[in-house]
Amino acid sequence: MTYCVGFTLNKGIVFISDTRTNSGVDNISTFRKMAIWEEPDDRCITLLSAGNLATTQAVVSLLEERSKSPQDRAPSIMAADSMFQVATMIGNTLREVISTHAMTGQRADATFNATLLLGGQVKNGKQRLFLIYPEGNFIEASDDTPFFQIGETKYGRPILLRAYDPDMTFEEAVKLLLVSFDSTIKANLSVSPPLDIHIYEKDSLKQGRTLRIEADDPYFQDISSGWGVALREAFSKLPAYSFDPN
Amino acid sequence: MTYCVGFTLNKGIVFISDTRTNSGVDNISTFRKMAIWEEPDDRCITLLSAGNLATTQAVVSLLEERSKSPQDRAPSIMAADSMFQVATMIGNTLREVISTHAMTGQRADATFNATLLLGGQVKNGKQRLFLIYPEGNFIEASDDTPFFQIGETKYGRPILLRAYDPDMTFEEAVKLLLVSFDSTIKANLSVSPPLDIHIYEKDSLKQGRTLRIEADDPYFQDISSGWGVALREAFSKLPAYSFDPN
Repeated sequence: MTYCVGFTLNKGIVFISDTRTNSGVDNISTFRKMAIWEEPDDRCITLLSAGNLATTQAVVSLLEERSKSPQDRAPSIMAADSMFQVATMIGNTLREVISTHAMTGQRADATFNATLLLGGQVKNGKQRLFLIYPEGNFIEASDDTPFFQIGETKYGRPILLRAYDPDMTFEEAVKLLLVSFDSTIKANLSVSPPLDIHIYEKDSLKQGRTLRIEADDPYFQDISSGWGVALREAFSKLPAYSFDPN
Repeated sequence: MTYCVGFTLNKGIVFISDTRTNSGVDNISTFRKMAIWEEPDDRCITLLSAGNLATTQAVVSLLEERSKSPQDRAPSIMAADSMFQVATMIGNTLREVISTHAMTGQRADATFNATLLLGGQVKNGKQRLFLIYPEGNFIEASDDTPFFQIGETKYGRPILLRAYDPDMTFEEAVKLLLVSFDSTIKANLSVSPPLDIHIYEKDSLKQGRTLRIEADDPYFQDISSGWGVALREAFSKLPAYSFDPN
């Protein structure tokens, strides 16, 4: 499993992903699930992936390969005119990789599936965030649905729904996302630090701050233990239930 | 979908279930998913069910049928000598129902599956709580895992993990469970009030207090709005993140 969030704010987009991959529970490894491409003053593109690792690595490698040499950039995400075109290209690449793998023998093609979060900005366009399905189609975040989660989304969702605010600072967003990840990590063995974070500043058109939060990061540990205490306090402040009101 | 919890405390067991059943999102109904059998001073048995409604209703009807007339009670859950025997009987009934339905035509037998929570006490035994799988086997709650959830378990799990305490009063347990249900109901359309609650008091050997919480229940509404505020307050009290500590 995996847990990734793309979080659209008025100030920019915060991307966060865990690094655990597993095949069963007895074969776990650490892999980066975040890829970033930039051409300063022209574009910055971030991709988070959940699902079959062979599939997502193949997608990233293909995109990488096609974007390396400027003269060889068509059709490349580094040459596309808009984030919509980038999303379309990545969707097509994802679908191709899945169908190629599915055709070469193994019948359980569901295991080749992957879902991607794509966000960023291309010059003369707005910052945009997309969720790309294994079929290659995609949906875009909006004011009504300003963030997307992929992978193990449920444990960490209630706090995001309750505390999200588009005017948040990046610091507040990182804090909120770490709370969401902490709840997920506590409940699901297949989501685990280190966590990768990329903070894209709106209209900067370049890679922003990137962080890697290790399991023993003092702030993450504060959040984890502090959240347990804070939750219990919040709970104790709710009105008490009484079987016989009045 | 469905959401049910069996919650073992030192004082007794609290059972709670929602009442929504759905076939797709355009065919929803309200059905009670809690069944209670009692013979005062001898036993009290509560069963919560998640999964295919035809399966769970068939199981309950069969158990009901077999327990009606005292002379016809073998093999009946009203005559079994222990909660373990009750769990075994119900597990067998569940497995039979599923396999019978699966044999009679439709191939998609996964859709006939159901999972049950069984709890209660039989004279001369302890209060016990079991989770029964579609295969008819089961596991029992213990001090390490004192509560079970079935159905849509994930959204409401983090708060249960953080706030559970075996010494809770029944009132506190109801409050906690309502918070857990509220988080789930906010996130998943297929879980919905009214909620059924049964509070079994340890060693009482009879049915305890039963409640039905409607969507417009004033206390449930207080909890729902209060929890959002309390969570945001708790979140704001966590230490702030800083990109440049020191």
